[in-house]
Amino acid sequence: MEPIYEGKAKKLYTTDDAEVLRMEYKDDATAFNAQKKAQFENKGKLNKAITLLMYEMLEAKGVATHLVSDLDEVNLLVKRVEILQVEVIVRNLAAGSFSKRMAVEVGSEFKIPIVEFSYKSDELGDPLINDDYAREMKLATPEECAFLKEQALVINEVMTAFFLECGLKLVDFKIEFGKGSDGKIVLADEVSPDTCRLWDATTGEKMDKDRFREDLGGVMDGYEEVLARISKVLTK
Amino acid sequence: MEPIYEGKAKKLYTTDDAEVLRMEYKDDATAFNAQKKAQFENKGKLNKAITLLMYEMLEAKGVATHLVSDLDEVNLLVKRVEILQVEVIVRNLAAGSFSKRMAVEVGSEFKIPIVEFSYKSDELGDPLINDDYAREMKLATPEECAFLKEQALVINEVMTAFFLECGLKLVDFKIEFGKGSDGKIVLADEVSPDTCRLWDATTGEKMDKDRFREDLGGVMDGYEEVLARISKVLTK
Repeated sequence: MEPIYEGKAKKLYTTDDAEVLRMEYKDDATAFNAQKKAQFENKGKLNKAITLLMYEMLEAKGVATHLVSDLDEVNLLVKRVEILQVEVIVRNLAAGSFSKRMAVEVGSEFKIPIVEFSYKSDELGDPLINDDYAREMKLATPEECAFLKEQALVINEVMTAFFLECGLKLVDFKIEFGKGSDGKIVLADEVSPDTCRLWDATTGEKMDKDRFREDLGGVMDGYEEVLARISKVLTK
Repeated sequence: MEPIYEGKAKKLYTTDDAEVLRMEYKDDATAFNAQKKAQFENKGKLNKAITLLMYEMLEAKGVATHLVSDLDEVNLLVKRVEILQVEVIVRNLAAGSFSKRMAVEVGSEFKIPIVEFSYKSDELGDPLINDDYAREMKLATPEECAFLKEQALVINEVMTAFFLECGLKLVDFKIEFGKGSDGKIVLADEVSPDTCRLWDATTGEKMDKDRFREDLGGVMDGYEEVLARISKVLTK
């Protein structure tokens, strides 16, 4: 079937069912707004597997996602949704752009998690925005913004507890949401070490895309370890 | 009396009254986070006069400010307040950093004004933040953020109507707030063509600091014209 969208890490294809798309996870890795690029063997496979398990875990906890079913090594079948052009970021510890923007030491813990929106635009570098920006740019209504924040905090609570069981600290993560033809907003895109900062709960070792960003080496070793730990907890 | 603070455009001195400070308006102009600097004769005088009239106008409309009284050509007496490290920006039309950040044409009108916060930090370039950032950085509590937004929108309504009477379009403005020893939060700092984008309502001519930023010339002519129009409306 024809590809209808190609992103930095995934491709979307139509299927026989107009309401269902095939989401292919690629081996491409990008960082710093695609200024740094690489390919990692098995990345697509690992991220697909991790996203699938995370979506199933989240669905079991009552979080609606766009997952329809597993398909094969690098493909999921997902509900056709219109992706909101607002990326939602949740932060439990200071890291990444927050630390840079606010000159706050990486690893500083927040009392209450921070939720923020960024405008999904590669050309503009996904800039931080607030609810008023989202409203005036018609990215999301005030009601949708409130819903996204609420959902993001629920997802954070569920994922933080789950990753802790896996011996991983969920530092921060980026999620996207999509609106179905029924108007329902569900979690979409992916949940993987590309989109979550995950540190070993004991050693603090980075197990996520920061290994690529910071040239720490063993990028796929980190992703494999994350998948292994998730699988182990889920099959307990 | 001794200076206790020197900013880019103003200096603060103690007075005999522990609760009152003298605020001196300087002739210094800075732009682009102080990368561009100049001095303009009479700037301090003009901004002091404009701020005084705007504060009196706002007070008459029920907006609490830190103004105590006029003192002389370049000095106001103001209530001693602790300035909140959150700058509040209100936007009626797209301009400046909004247009750059979001790739929106300068002059595009918003349906509802945008209110945003930035972290008052010269070193960091006054970065845009949201309420969660303000809370976790202890810049302002959620309740204070809500109050600041509410006040900012009231001030915008009052100033937009007033400037329109002056034949000026209020494009956007930056305000600061201070907390007194009584815990009350009031409008502080200044309201001038340094902090407000003002366009002639008919011709669209810029009458504010953008004349300095964009090397349009006649910077003080613009400020003088703003003062003349404000004075004329107020003495009607």
